[in-house]
Amino acid sequence: MRLRNKPWAKDKIAENPQYVVPNPAEYKGNWKEVFGNENPLHIEVGTGKGQFLVGMAKQNPHINYIGIEMYESVILSALERLIEEELPNLKLLNVDANHLSEFFAKNDVDRVYLNFSDPWPKKRHAKRRLTYKTFLSMYENLLVDGGEIHFKTDNQGLFEYSLTSFSEYGLLLKYISLDLHKSDFEGNVMTEYEEKFSQKGSRIYRCEVKYLNEKD
Amino acid sequence: MRLRNKPWAKDKIAENPQYVVPNPAEYKGNWKEVFGNENPLHIEVGTGKGQFLVGMAKQNPHINYIGIEMYESVILSALERLIEEELPNLKLLNVDANHLSEFFAKNDVDRVYLNFSDPWPKKRHAKRRLTYKTFLSMYENLLVDGGEIHFKTDNQGLFEYSLTSFSEYGLLLKYISLDLHKSDFEGNVMTEYEEKFSQKGSRIYRCEVKYLNEKD
Repeated sequence: MRLRNKPWAKDKIAENPQYVVPNPAEYKGNWKEVFGNENPLHIEVGTGKGQFLVGMAKQNPHINYIGIEMYESVILSALERLIEEELPNLKLLNVDANHLSEFFAKNDVDRVYLNFSDPWPKKRHAKRRLTYKTFLSMYENLLVDGGEIHFKTDNQGLFEYSLTSFSEYGLLLKYISLDLHKSDFEGNVMTEYEEKFSQKGSRIYRCEVKYLNEKD
Repeated sequence: MRLRNKPWAKDKIAENPQYVVPNPAEYKGNWKEVFGNENPLHIEVGTGKGQFLVGMAKQNPHINYIGIEMYESVILSALERLIEEELPNLKLLNVDANHLSEFFAKNDVDRVYLNFSDPWPKKRHAKRRLTYKTFLSMYENLLVDGGEIHFKTDNQGLFEYSLTSFSEYGLLLKYISLDLHKSDFEGNVMTEYEEKFSQKGSRIYRCEVKYLNEKD
């Protein structure tokens, strides 16, 4: 994504603490308080301009959503959408995905969404991929037992890599689609990127993986 | 594959016991005797007309191969190739893949190849797919610890299904290619079917999966 400098972004974010949570570390272990209900919490790591999560939050009012996006100039677009839609079940965090453990405790989160993450195609950058084992471990430490990752990408190499990374970590591959838009999957909410690239004929890959309980 | 009735097939098979092993149950646990060496044994389940396994046996003289094919009229073509090539490290079995446990004991086999297996696309036929859990269990009972399955198909639905079936069974996904002929995989030997359908533009999917040792 090309980043434009938007000097007004910081102010706008600060003016909307009901949407972009300031000091999120304070709510670690207590996100239910923020939403004022006991609904499940799904987070999207790398939420971009927010089209996916706004769509999901509208579609599923009984699920709470948090979008994680580190770039102010990008999260600004998500914030603008959210101000317009006034969704009580969606919050944003302007933080770096590498530090999620500062903001979420074990069992805080029921599902992690990864959509069109940076593929980091060079082997020496594999550690930066959001499906690398250190990230899988980080998600495990904030998810409930049996929690899931739902992952979409148009990048073939990242998808191939991620399936083997999930398997090596011991995750269960529950569902795989190698051509999402021609599959029978229902209720797909597209990201901005997905809309653009699928129109150009790119295949969209999708999978759902699950952290196994000891009982399983 | 369209099957043509070839009444002479049975005789030709019977005339070539050095290639199509008669009474294979006699060798259960003792395949090294048949080949006269200690080399690893790789089997292909559903070997068709034999192009893949003949190519592999020529490429890898220090590996023993056995092709399993239940249709006489089909294995005849593999036999004719084998007579022509005179490969000492390739044998054929004219038996049903459902009964492999009659012919192979635990640790007899180092690797199982599945190439372009029948997709059985209807859900009610899932049990017939060669990657269904009962088959995965059957392969486990003839493979060495840490043995592998190498699987190719052009059928998207079968590949999606198989990846989840492997994962559910607890197999490790070691390698995945979602477009084999455009990948950097080296030494690919094509089946007849693969040659035909990849020319028509079909993607070929491939993966390698491993049965985990208790040590792993």
